[in-house]
Amino acid sequence: MNSRELFEKIKAKRSFLCVGLDSEFGKIPEFLKMGQNPVFEFNKRIIDTTAPYAVAYKLNTAFYEAYGVSGWVNLRMTVDYLRASYPDMFLIADAKRGDIGNTSKMYAKAFFDTIGFDAVTVAPYMGEDSIKPFIGYKDKWAIILALTSNQGASTFQFTEDKYGGRMMFEKVIYHSKNWGNKDNIMYVVGATKADLIKDVRRLVPDHFLLIPGVGFQGGSLSETARVGMNYHCGLLVNSSRSIIFADSSENFAEIAAQKAQELQQEMAELLEDKGIM
Amino acid sequence: MNSRELFEKIKAKRSFLCVGLDSEFGKIPEFLKMGQNPVFEFNKRIIDTTAPYAVAYKLNTAFYEAYGVSGWVNLRMTVDYLRASYPDMFLIADAKRGDIGNTSKMYAKAFFDTIGFDAVTVAPYMGEDSIKPFIGYKDKWAIILALTSNQGASTFQFTEDKYGGRMMFEKVIYHSKNWGNKDNIMYVVGATKADLIKDVRRLVPDHFLLIPGVGFQGGSLSETARVGMNYHCGLLVNSSRSIIFADSSENFAEIAAQKAQELQQEMAELLEDKGIM
Repeated sequence: MNSRELFEKIKAKRSFLCVGLDSEFGKIPEFLKMGQNPVFEFNKRIIDTTAPYAVAYKLNTAFYEAYGVSGWVNLRMTVDYLRASYPDMFLIADAKRGDIGNTSKMYAKAFFDTIGFDAVTVAPYMGEDSIKPFIGYKDKWAIILALTSNQGASTFQFTEDKYGGRMMFEKVIYHSKNWGNKDNIMYVVGATKADLIKDVRRLVPDHFLLIPGVGFQGGSLSETARVGMNYHCGLLVNSSRSIIFADSSENFAEIAAQKAQELQQEMAELLEDKGIM
Repeated sequence: MNSRELFEKIKAKRSFLCVGLDSEFGKIPEFLKMGQNPVFEFNKRIIDTTAPYAVAYKLNTAFYEAYGVSGWVNLRMTVDYLRASYPDMFLIADAKRGDIGNTSKMYAKAFFDTIGFDAVTVAPYMGEDSIKPFIGYKDKWAIILALTSNQGASTFQFTEDKYGGRMMFEKVIYHSKNWGNKDNIMYVVGATKADLIKDVRRLVPDHFLLIPGVGFQGGSLSETARVGMNYHCGLLVNSSRSIIFADSSENFAEIAAQKAQELQQEMAELLEDKGIM
């Protein structure tokens, strides 16, 4: 999927919502825990009710790896189910990988070839040869951490370069945008730092941004859209816990869908306000 | 295992060698590929012959994840075998993880509780709350990326802070050393940059350093020891490809052991030269 195709899906769904399947076993409804592959069962129900409102799903690998081999079985089943039932969805492995070149190549193989994700989040600390192996797969994306939504982000990401004056997150974008293009690189930019999204947009006016931190982490959707949206939307806004764990009763999937729909409706208005629908 | 216990093992084995099980399926000897769980079979034979010369094994998760669920099965079998047959070994998950706090907590659970590693490598870009969940497990370690051995490392790791003058890798160490202590934090410092190991030692005279890049990547063991060794050795030097893929015949495990022994003998001399044996 390239950026034009992604924008087509956004227009069709009137949504730039990414649902984060941070499906921690301990938090899924009790009545599901007895079955086989309960995390997959949970995901399947969430997907079936939220799919009308979402253009992307993001699986955070930590919540699967925490359960070892059976976690990876549930991750694999979830991606296979999404591919079979909702082939148009953009699928993100939120894995934050990155290593020396020959190792990153194996991570790219893991997430693109073996499992079949469309995109992987990658950490920039190790530089160009750690990220390049994720770029250049046809229709696949590297989503590079620039400005993250957590409290500790500022210590290193806000370090100001003595030469050139850029902060580290700007330097990451400034260099890495030339390693690929707007059809294979996105950036993670936390919604909890809306004022800084403007600075990011100056550096990459055309790229898509993956915005975590709306909802549970406190970021504002309208503020994010105001500063971050571009001519082809250019945003995927992720919400995880505030959708998937909104309710723990037998109706959890319907409540999740309501939460997703609320965000989708707000997104439709924001897209109309921007005049790109 | 704390730093004193690790030093005891180093003295007993006269070695500070970590064998890196970067066991890429495509590179293991052909005659092993037909069996069940060939990567585990390969690892088991490498472990059995190299164990006399090593104090640690490092499993790079990329080479297992590349094969999805079956890769994780082989990773798990390898750790279980090491724990059962060589309970004294220090086991490192070279995973380079790091995410917002509640997610890093799940990665710590994955590698410490579910699989049973002693240490995990973590990426510092996201700051304190992304690393803290790995620190504080009894006798477990976070091994923080400071200065990596790859070519692209310099772009971000050598960024000089406008305020304070430190380079990024020094800033990472300067801040993170206070998040734990010498019994639960190590640093990754590439052997391809021996002159800079001195700068690291000034910041953390007491900590253990995990040194990759000796062997295939071109780093020098004696130079590394000269600038990096401290009163309790303070070094784990990793070698992966130049040991495990030294040979691809039926004798691959014996050849690997020879390579490991050569390094161990050099290490024994370096420990003696330092006067700590």
